[in-house]
Amino acid sequence: MTEQVIFAETCGKNHSIHYKCREIVYSGRSDFQRFELVDTLEYGRMLFLDGVAQSSQRDEFIYHEAMVHPAMLTHPQPRSVCIIGGAEGASLREIFRHPDVTRVVMVDIDEPLVRACQKYLPEYSAGAFDDPRLELIFGDGRAFLEKTTEKFDVILVDLSDPVPNSPAVLLFTYEFYRTIHDKLTEHGTACFQGESLQPWRVELHARMVNTLSAVFPYVTAYPYALPCFHEVHAMIVASKGDDPRTADLGGRYKERGLNLKYISPTYLAGIFHVPGYVEQAYAVHTEIMTDGKPLALKGYRFSL
Amino acid sequence: MTEQVIFAETCGKNHSIHYKCREIVYSGRSDFQRFELVDTLEYGRMLFLDGVAQSSQRDEFIYHEAMVHPAMLTHPQPRSVCIIGGAEGASLREIFRHPDVTRVVMVDIDEPLVRACQKYLPEYSAGAFDDPRLELIFGDGRAFLEKTTEKFDVILVDLSDPVPNSPAVLLFTYEFYRTIHDKLTEHGTACFQGESLQPWRVELHARMVNTLSAVFPYVTAYPYALPCFHEVHAMIVASKGDDPRTADLGGRYKERGLNLKYISPTYLAGIFHVPGYVEQAYAVHTEIMTDGKPLALKGYRFSL
Amino acid sequence: MTEQVIFAETCGKNHSIHYKCREIVYSGRSDFQRFELVDTLEYGRMLFLDGVAQSSQRDEFIYHEAMVHPAMLTHPQPRSVCIIGGAEGASLREIFRHPDVTRVVMVDIDEPLVRACQKYLPEYSAGAFDDPRLELIFGDGRAFLEKTTEKFDVILVDLSDPVPNSPAVLLFTYEFYRTIHDKLTEHGTACFQGESLQPWRVELHARMVNTLSAVFPYVTAYPYALPCFHEVHAMIVASKGDDPRTADLGGRYKERGLNLKYISPTYLAGIFHVPGYVEQAYAVHTEIMTDGKPLALKGYRFSL
Amino acid sequence: MTEQVIFAETCGKNHSIHYKCREIVYSGRSDFQRFELVDTLEYGRMLFLDGVAQSSQRDEFIYHEAMVHPAMLTHPQPRSVCIIGGAEGASLREIFRHPDVTRVVMVDIDEPLVRACQKYLPEYSAGAFDDPRLELIFGDGRAFLEKTTEKFDVILVDLSDPVPNSPAVLLFTYEFYRTIHDKLTEHGTACFQGESLQPWRVELHARMVNTLSAVFPYVTAYPYALPCFHEVHAMIVASKGDDPRTADLGGRYKERGLNLKYISPTYLAGIFHVPGYVEQAYAVHTEIMTDGKPLALKGYRFSL
Repeated sequence: MTEQVIFAETCGKNHSIHYKCREIVYSGRSDFQRFELVDTLEYGRMLFLDGVAQSSQRDEFIYHEAMVHPAMLTHPQPRSVCIIGGAEGASLREIFRHPDVTRVVMVDIDEPLVRACQKYLPEYSAGAFDDPRLELIFGDGRAFLEKTTEKFDVILVDLSDPVPNSPAVLLFTYEFYRTIHDKLTEHGTACFQGESLQPWRVELHARMVNTLSAVFPYVTAYPYALPCFHEVHAMIVASKGDDPRTADLGGRYKERGLNLKYISPTYLAGIFHVPGYVEQAYAVHTEIMTDGKPLALKGYRFSL
Repeated sequence: MTEQVIFAETCGKNHSIHYKCREIVYSGRSDFQRFELVDTLEYGRMLFLDGVAQSSQRDEFIYHEAMVHPAMLTHPQPRSVCIIGGAEGASLREIFRHPDVTRVVMVDIDEPLVRACQKYLPEYSAGAFDDPRLELIFGDGRAFLEKTTEKFDVILVDLSDPVPNSPAVLLFTYEFYRTIHDKLTEHGTACFQGESLQPWRVELHARMVNTLSAVFPYVTAYPYALPCFHEVHAMIVASKGDDPRTADLGGRYKERGLNLKYISPTYLAGIFHVPGYVEQAYAVHTEIMTDGKPLALKGYRFSL
Repeated sequence: MTEQVIFAETCGKNHSIHYKCREIVYSGRSDFQRFELVDTLEYGRMLFLDGVAQSSQRDEFIYHEAMVHPAMLTHPQPRSVCIIGGAEGASLREIFRHPDVTRVVMVDIDEPLVRACQKYLPEYSAGAFDDPRLELIFGDGRAFLEKTTEKFDVILVDLSDPVPNSPAVLLFTYEFYRTIHDKLTEHGTACFQGESLQPWRVELHARMVNTLSAVFPYVTAYPYALPCFHEVHAMIVASKGDDPRTADLGGRYKERGLNLKYISPTYLAGIFHVPGYVEQAYAVHTEIMTDGKPLALKGYRFSL
Repeated sequence: MTEQVIFAETCGKNHSIHYKCREIVYSGRSDFQRFELVDTLEYGRMLFLDGVAQSSQRDEFIYHEAMVHPAMLTHPQPRSVCIIGGAEGASLREIFRHPDVTRVVMVDIDEPLVRACQKYLPEYSAGAFDDPRLELIFGDGRAFLEKTTEKFDVILVDLSDPVPNSPAVLLFTYEFYRTIHDKLTEHGTACFQGESLQPWRVELHARMVNTLSAVFPYVTAYPYALPCFHEVHAMIVASKGDDPRTADLGGRYKERGLNLKYISPTYLAGIFHVPGYVEQAYAVHTEIMTDGKPLALKGYRFSL
């Protein structure tokens, strides 16, 4: 005889989403953020960071396939991959589907969060944390990349939103993108969580694209709609060597024996196009984000 | 000194979305449905039918551009258009952007709803209801098409969900699609509100595509994410004469002098692709919907 | 096939109550306030003013019996009654149960609200608005009492909360209480909606009691819990001639042939007692509210 | 930069209360129930059992003083007390305020819940769990009372609601009340959490009073409104020797040096009176609850 509880996310200042839950599975706090793992009726287990949904069991394949594969396929033969963030381990799982990968370095700042994901969301990583090709580092991703002498074929930047006073704010700047560029090999490609495409919140996305375009020769975005995000977002691929729009992604997909749920060869054929208002935003929001003048999502979330 | 109220939509059985509102602008009921017009802080005025969000002031351009233009551009020179549903009048507004249009017949079953939209959402139709090229009929769309001897270059089917016991259920069948086919001119094209692409609710969309494919030579879908729907949906274009995937939609866009917010020539270039799990659903949910065996969205919404 | 909607009240800064509703019956706005009439599943029709619940069909008998009868029974033979506020008409209905009443003057500032209550909540007034003994005046209650030369046996002050910038703020002051005192006959009694007894919000109630005690010889409070208020409140009786605590209320109840749902002779016997923390608040919050230094419920409600 | 979350309680089938929270402090599950400890902005920490609020830091004094003192004061000199339930330890804290108490036996079925309360709500028990006069037993309260040969001066029955299939259902029956009667000393008194007084949910309370009246010579109820319950409830005192309505509770209060926040001598003077509709319910709902024919709160809470 168990009552259900309702857990709500305040997604924007003006509305909230209320999930019926079987239980609050886990509630914790690290030095960096608060996290809740909630077992919802609609989405299965969901991870919330500082009250904001990050992914759910039923739709995480969309997010993680969109994050990993277009960049991995833009590179002709990715062997070494670095992932900044990615606590749940599901991006890892997708990376290892590419058969030539020999080394992955994952740098996440929040060890308690990674441990909670390993314990409560084991099917996200599906064993990837035990893969001997993985080096797992707990620390600051930007500092790691600035110090390392290693170069990578692919770098994935899987961050949460740059809300005010968050260290994430300095992971959305020209200087950081420059560092990524320099730590990529000749044909190196990178993918960035590219933020919201809501028409009235598109500024950050547009400025990411313009800032990346000041660093990389090829930059292109693609929308994806994650059900548990309740709005449309984008990923952004940036590449040093190959244009993702003309590379033979579908051919490489087949060569590598991929068989995915969200990304398919035909979907890849039309993936790199954004709606008109997003193109227009690129022309308007041209100011480059720098360490000295970054952009934080002021007033973006509920403040009580 | 005015308090704000919260109006909530129960979107699926398991979660709800709570909007902070300036006011309930209008609340009414016709023979067919209950409707509320609510002035929300996030989206501006929103229209709810039987408690389900239909559109909002701030994002309706996405829905209505996606509904109207791909079908209109697939036709080489659309002159006559029939729209089934479309109460808000915003599809009308988009239709009239195509310069060769000489006649539009709109058939909506719910006169009180249309009148409420004219009064409370006048910028949706932006004067289109007063256009002398429009014939506005209040009645059953299927019955109208079955009886008329007229043929149209484009037919737009802008319906709400086929929930159980709703007459809309019989507007998602082979027989109705056959009728539409027969009332289209030689190069005729149609567009259908194509329902949800949530991975676990994709059956209805897949069966629409398969049922339409039994009637039309060319059928293709495209996703769109309307912020106030809080999930991703699809539109479906069906065509008698031209394949939308190979027609020169971008060229026609420019010829007709269009300058839209959501649909752009570059966006059109990649529009007709759906994610892998949707393609897979087409292979699984192959049963054709007929008047004798239709599909209703059982258990799809909150029942108390 | 009708979906239900949820209407929420933000009761305090920190939580909200979400009602499942059959429909929004009416939504309006006067010069003074916004009002919604909502048909809830739990309480039947509810009236909200500026988003705050005022009463419901299923529990209004508690509020209106508590408002009217203790004061009416404290007076040995009430013939003339003045009610300030009372838009719903249910206080009127209760007043007319006392057989010697020959004249009632009701002064409410908000005619559109009274008209909406007459139309949508007719069973609240149960015909009382048509009683020839009633004089209904739309205007400012304080101004009316200041100008009139008439005196009343009973004055009922049925107001909503004195939120900032509301004219109601000046209906909670020494000067207004002085006016009421002066417009009462020799044995005159008054009853005041006495505000919240939540332990952490008891200041306004305590200062009402202390301010009234500076005007009237007998002042006593009694708690009541209205389900749709979701917290405990008090009424306050103030009397010029008889102490409500020692008057034979039960005897008069029987003499007048009353047969009520909430107030009974045995309940009257124990009614005039408040919890210990409320008595303690009387000793702490002793500052008298005046026109020059009134108390408004700052920060009491949600502000967005 | 921490977002707040919202935790909601579905209090009845038809509405819910949404609390803004600083954090979910603890979430657990025992063999008997699910429990959450949530730090709300309005009430401080709150305990929920199976999704139903049990108490909060800011108002628990009301519940626990109402539970403990009227029964303890009805007894001329309580030395031994048994408490069935009472996991939070706050009833214990109140019991020990009575100076002659030499022995308390607390029997709670749910050890994990008691341990969580000791850890996360230490100010509820305020050291009472360490008092050498306490014997703490984890087990079935009814079975304990049936087996023990000990008799007590006061027995407190502090239970949650008898929802269907809960073992609590058999703690609301004639047979259990008979057992309590038999395990009380000559002047023994008992207090029972007496359930809701919402006008449309008063049946269970009325049948408790009538069933207890078939066992005890003196039975009397008193309402209390706990803010975090959001409705009015009652406690019921049953006594073998002294009538609580005529005993000198106020005199004993002073003799024992009590100085409480909710219960005061003047409040005690009027405490034992219920509203008229509750008296009427006693006359209607006369059927006695037995082990063979108990009453469960069917359909009382949300079922999804």
